[in-house]
Amino acid sequence: MSHGDVDPELEMTSPHWMHREAESCPRMHTIWRLERWRSSMLLLIGLALCVLRAPGCSATDTDIALDAKATLNHRIQSLDLLVFVFLLALTVLTIWLFKHHRVSWLHETGLAVIYGLIVGAIIRYAGTSATLVHMQVEPQGVPTYSDKLPPDTLWFRYPVNQTNSTKLPEGIKTYAYVFRGQVHDVDENEIDLKATFDPEVFFNIILPPIIFYAGYSLKKKYFFRNLGAILTFAIVGTTLSAFLIGGFMYGCVKLMPNYLSSSFSFLDTLYFGALISPTDPLTILAIFNDLRVDVNLYALVLGESVLNDAVAIVLSGAIQNYGEHYSDTGEFETTAFLRSLSDFFSIFLLSLMIGAAMGCLTALMTKFTRVRDFPLLESALFVLMSYSTFLLAEATELTGVVAVLFCGICQAHYTYNNLSEDSRQRTKQIFELLNFLAENFIFSYIGVSMFTFPKHHFDAGFIITAFICAAIGRAVNVYPLSWLLNIRRKPKISSNFQHMLFFAGLRGAMSFALAIRNTVSDARQTMLTATSLIVIFTVVIQGGAANFLLNWLKIPVGVDDETEQLNNYQVHSDVEGGGVGRGKVRLSGGTDSNLDTSVDGPNGSLGGASSGRRRNSHEKAILARIWGNFDTKYMKPLLTHSRPTLLETLPVCCNPIARLLTTTQQLTQDGSEFRRVDSDSDICIDNDTGNGLSQDATGAVPGSGVGVGRRNSLSRMEILEHVQSPVSTRIRLLGFYGKKL
Amino acid sequence: MSHGDVDPELEMTSPHWMHREAESCPRMHTIWRLERWRSSMLLLIGLALCVLRAPGCSATDTDIALDAKATLNHRIQSLDLLVFVFLLALTVLTIWLFKHHRVSWLHETGLAVIYGLIVGAIIRYAGTSATLVHMQVEPQGVPTYSDKLPPDTLWFRYPVNQTNSTKLPEGIKTYAYVFRGQVHDVDENEIDLKATFDPEVFFNIILPPIIFYAGYSLKKKYFFRNLGAILTFAIVGTTLSAFLIGGFMYGCVKLMPNYLSSSFSFLDTLYFGALISPTDPLTILAIFNDLRVDVNLYALVLGESVLNDAVAIVLSGAIQNYGEHYSDTGEFETTAFLRSLSDFFSIFLLSLMIGAAMGCLTALMTKFTRVRDFPLLESALFVLMSYSTFLLAEATELTGVVAVLFCGICQAHYTYNNLSEDSRQRTKQIFELLNFLAENFIFSYIGVSMFTFPKHHFDAGFIITAFICAAIGRAVNVYPLSWLLNIRRKPKISSNFQHMLFFAGLRGAMSFALAIRNTVSDARQTMLTATSLIVIFTVVIQGGAANFLLNWLKIPVGVDDETEQLNNYQVHSDVEGGGVGRGKVRLSGGTDSNLDTSVDGPNGSLGGASSGRRRNSHEKAILARIWGNFDTKYMKPLLTHSRPTLLETLPVCCNPIARLLTTTQQLTQDGSEFRRVDSDSDICIDNDTGNGLSQDATGAVPGSGVGVGRRNSLSRMEILEHVQSPVSTRIRLLGFYGKKL
Repeated sequence: MSHGDVDPELEMTSPHWMHREAESCPRMHTIWRLERWRSSMLLLIGLALCVLRAPGCSATDTDIALDAKATLNHRIQSLDLLVFVFLLALTVLTIWLFKHHRVSWLHETGLAVIYGLIVGAIIRYAGTSATLVHMQVEPQGVPTYSDKLPPDTLWFRYPVNQTNSTKLPEGIKTYAYVFRGQVHDVDENEIDLKATFDPEVFFNIILPPIIFYAGYSLKKKYFFRNLGAILTFAIVGTTLSAFLIGGFMYGCVKLMPNYLSSSFSFLDTLYFGALISPTDPLTILAIFNDLRVDVNLYALVLGESVLNDAVAIVLSGAIQNYGEHYSDTGEFETTAFLRSLSDFFSIFLLSLMIGAAMGCLTALMTKFTRVRDFPLLESALFVLMSYSTFLLAEATELTGVVAVLFCGICQAHYTYNNLSEDSRQRTKQIFELLNFLAENFIFSYIGVSMFTFPKHHFDAGFIITAFICAAIGRAVNVYPLSWLLNIRRKPKISSNFQHMLFFAGLRGAMSFALAIRNTVSDARQTMLTATSLIVIFTVVIQGGAANFLLNWLKIPVGVDDETEQLNNYQVHSDVEGGGVGRGKVRLSGGTDSNLDTSVDGPNGSLGGASSGRRRNSHEKAILARIWGNFDTKYMKPLLTHSRPTLLETLPVCCNPIARLLTTTQQLTQDGSEFRRVDSDSDICIDNDTGNGLSQDATGAVPGSGVGVGRRNSLSRMEILEHVQSPVSTRIRLLGFYGKKL
Repeated sequence: MSHGDVDPELEMTSPHWMHREAESCPRMHTIWRLERWRSSMLLLIGLALCVLRAPGCSATDTDIALDAKATLNHRIQSLDLLVFVFLLALTVLTIWLFKHHRVSWLHETGLAVIYGLIVGAIIRYAGTSATLVHMQVEPQGVPTYSDKLPPDTLWFRYPVNQTNSTKLPEGIKTYAYVFRGQVHDVDENEIDLKATFDPEVFFNIILPPIIFYAGYSLKKKYFFRNLGAILTFAIVGTTLSAFLIGGFMYGCVKLMPNYLSSSFSFLDTLYFGALISPTDPLTILAIFNDLRVDVNLYALVLGESVLNDAVAIVLSGAIQNYGEHYSDTGEFETTAFLRSLSDFFSIFLLSLMIGAAMGCLTALMTKFTRVRDFPLLESALFVLMSYSTFLLAEATELTGVVAVLFCGICQAHYTYNNLSEDSRQRTKQIFELLNFLAENFIFSYIGVSMFTFPKHHFDAGFIITAFICAAIGRAVNVYPLSWLLNIRRKPKISSNFQHMLFFAGLRGAMSFALAIRNTVSDARQTMLTATSLIVIFTVVIQGGAANFLLNWLKIPVGVDDETEQLNNYQVHSDVEGGGVGRGKVRLSGGTDSNLDTSVDGPNGSLGGASSGRRRNSHEKAILARIWGNFDTKYMKPLLTHSRPTLLETLPVCCNPIARLLTTTQQLTQDGSEFRRVDSDSDICIDNDTGNGLSQDATGAVPGSGVGVGRRNSLSRMEILEHVQSPVSTRIRLLGFYGKKL
């Protein structure tokens, strides 16, 4: 498990004097420590603003000194965070400026990184550093080490020079010290103590909203259409790439003449392979979004980069576990390997299941209550359930990030359809904003940390090798797998697409977070430095060049339909806005563009018919088809207000259960409800895959009723005029379940 | 300063073994410690979900044991938080159920408290508790206490029984321990170590969004109309009430025969007075909102309860400082008193100024950039600037909560007008949601903590006295001040309103947060218990009874106009939804109800004319009138796109500056812009207060242009048809500033 990799040394934070500082979350103060320049800043601000106030603190007492130190610390931490917030605000303004002037050679994440680098350099080379005082202690009296664990707290009696009234007459006070972690380098402690970055903040604050939003905004239709390719790239590709990079790096490192060869084990390089393999969705997709690139390419890149984050975090956890628990020697052992393998799969699948289950639970909650009458409550419920997915997974030693991803996908696929219009917008906007802030924060931090994080370990040889290996790993991921996939794929992945996929392999937040999670050894520190540089390089240079490459490779851009709209139907792409409309996604009631959707087959299930026809030669992945059928027949009717209802899809013997699980709204919904319910049923089912859908439905329901039920944009009245049988169906159903009304 | 009151003992949290746990913010794990029952919960969930996974950890090494402990800790903390999240989700669902069935005798915050109590009781009486191991240590070798401060970290060498390969050959590892705080009760440490509540979380996470939202959603028009009364109640009333309660309590406590009389100083009871005086806006306003109570009563209650939170936090900080820094004896000293007094005023005013300045800065940013083209960026900027206000105030030793309140007011008053439609909705919805979650969390926590917080100190005598004094304090706040105000007020505060004001004095989040901030002494613990009970009682019982009392006092309810709409114009109150429409506030383009707004005076400035006429006998507070004039003439033109522009209001000599500060948009805006800009200009200016507004404007601009500019809902075309002169004005102005276009 990934929780196993405790790296206490990292955590030896600077003056964690006061608990109230150390523990109060909002400031996230422990993430950074900009020791050097803030004294002067503080002085300035303090002088400017506190002139009116009497200073009033005649500190002669230890208490008062402690108090003052605590206050100072609180101010310093506020200031640290303030610097980051200002940095983000500056980034936002510059992004606007760039968008305003249509600057395309530098993208927002790249901008955040560059600003971060500048601020980091300023912090590094301005101001002075503060030092921490430490003292070596030993147990009082005769030590009895009954436990194999060191004590949780130490109590330390310290003589204080008191001037005020005191409760302890002898002038000695007892202070508590809390366990922090192991000190590895007893000699060079100075730098360790200032290394105050807590990598877990990434995994617990920054990444979850990013990953959730990625899931929540997956373009489902094209995602499911390309499911086979995406899964291949994400799971097979990432694993392959990780092992390949791991092996390559190991070979290269062993050839290096310096100390590196001794400090790196194969597990280390394998871990490096795992952390450098996942690609980052943020930058490249922002560009794709702006340019409205071909939807299939978009789906491939998005789906792969979202999923391979999940794969990488589980994979690196399994590698870590292998090294820490299963293997004694660090060499290959079959049982240990099998254990890690089972870890990998079980954690991934269980996290997936928890995420999906919580998503479905939310869908059920929103389906069977009328909480949608109160959008605020509904949104709150949505947020709480999504967050509890993360907590639940973490509480059960699974991977919260993975769970949150699949929860997001389920929320978008099912719950979203049950939400009120207001909540849809609200949840989308909230997570969009959180995602934006988190993503810019992480990239700023990557920049800042290049200068301020004290555990960087520059080694030119390793860095160059890492760059080469990262490129090779990406190539191995893309080209052979594309070739394999192309054997059976209908619309082949063209070589230009393959080049673009290769080029879209930016490294980002997940790589950095995994690298900075553990910096206890020289090897790990070297890896962190290489990773940071790779991230910065790929985001700034590759991200900037993506535009030109798209042109050069002649990849279709400006594809109107469904490129801007991250979520699905009803979301018009803001065509008027030109290339600058990102974030301007807007919900509108009328879906004129869908009015040409017609009922093709007698058996309904024409979700995606309109776009399916447009791209008739599209592949029909078997996996996607099976899932699509199952989804339309059982999952959607169960979890949303969509039609056909379970009454129609379940065998007759299950009618009582189906009755329970079908809401009257599902049976009586009017035109607007149809529109809403059908929002993303058009996943991946092409015209010819829906046959046999209603055959096993309840005999009383003619299949055509289903077909009409799925008709997107016809109003209730039109439906009534055009088709008579579904009305009678509905009437019959209503009579049947009259008591439920 | 309030940061001075370090209470280290509080912070002696349970096994803060791992830094990654102790520091990772999102879980806010240190807030609670539900030690007792989670072992069993964990076991269950763990068993249910981890069956597939090989356990694989043959812990013989200290490292592995530490690792396992860290993992367990992480899981426990996730689970703790999970319990709270589930509790909130349950509350949300129940609130929905109550609203659905129109239950009026129990309100949502009351519900949260009751659920909290139930869960707290379950946690308390189920499961077992964990203990912490502590060890007394002394310095190694000869101690040299060079500093008057205890060291930041202790290094502790601990023998480990190692089976694996090791780097330290002698089997001894050095662990770092971080300073936490003073141990007060060396004997009864057990309970202290489990008291793992960090009160600063309230001040840094929970309260800021609540307070910001309160400011952001102030009903500005009626707020400014009743400014005098609100300020009197909030500042004079709260201070009066604090001192009165403090004095009363001191007298009563001294009469008590038990140990209490010795443990309470006058400062303690005064602090109690300060913390119990502020009233809570949440519950009562939710009720008022649902019932659409008279707007003036609403404004009085909202304004007072928002401001008195700010007053109370500064007041209690000043009292704290008086005791800790200024006074040696705890008795009355003139200089110390004056210092505290200056503290109080300077902190309050400086915080106010910082908040207002940051709000205005945001307004300028949004006015002079076109960041509104990208609503996501705009919202991000808004959130970042608002948050940086809090940080800036904290970094300068001011009170972040107060700064955030006034920042919220400024953001609503100025920035809001510059935002794009999308951002308006987004920011409002985000802060509404944050506010909702934070408010329900705090009330749940109040309930839970009654059972789980180990430092409660029940004393029937004190509690009863506290209840009585709280009621008396509220009465002293309301009745005499109302009488005084009524001397000059035009529409008197009727005695029924006074009774309702008295009754609306629920105590809430702020009282609880202030009480739990410091629980180091018996006196403070007794105060916490009394405060908790008062909060619970008032929220549940008074909150539930408010409905009936409103009926009984015959206070007008169901006032349609502007009761639901917290922010202003364009927000239709959702009349169809009946009393259950809270949170359904919806933005819509057409403001049909405003179409009857007509231009009354030739000089424009008819903001609020329509409603002003409806309530013609309304008071015109001098303060409000002066401010309103200044605001309309200088602040709004400077900070928003509103008209008249500075060109019209500033003397001619300032024209160059005015030109710089006037955007072309301000000069060229069309009908829709008018609507937007006018959103909350109707603050407090009645029909006869706008005279002389345009007299000192640039001569080139006829006043009528202003008048039409302020016409709310007429389209551009209508304006063009009806009035000719403003068009020529605009054309002339455009010619004048043609180069800016």
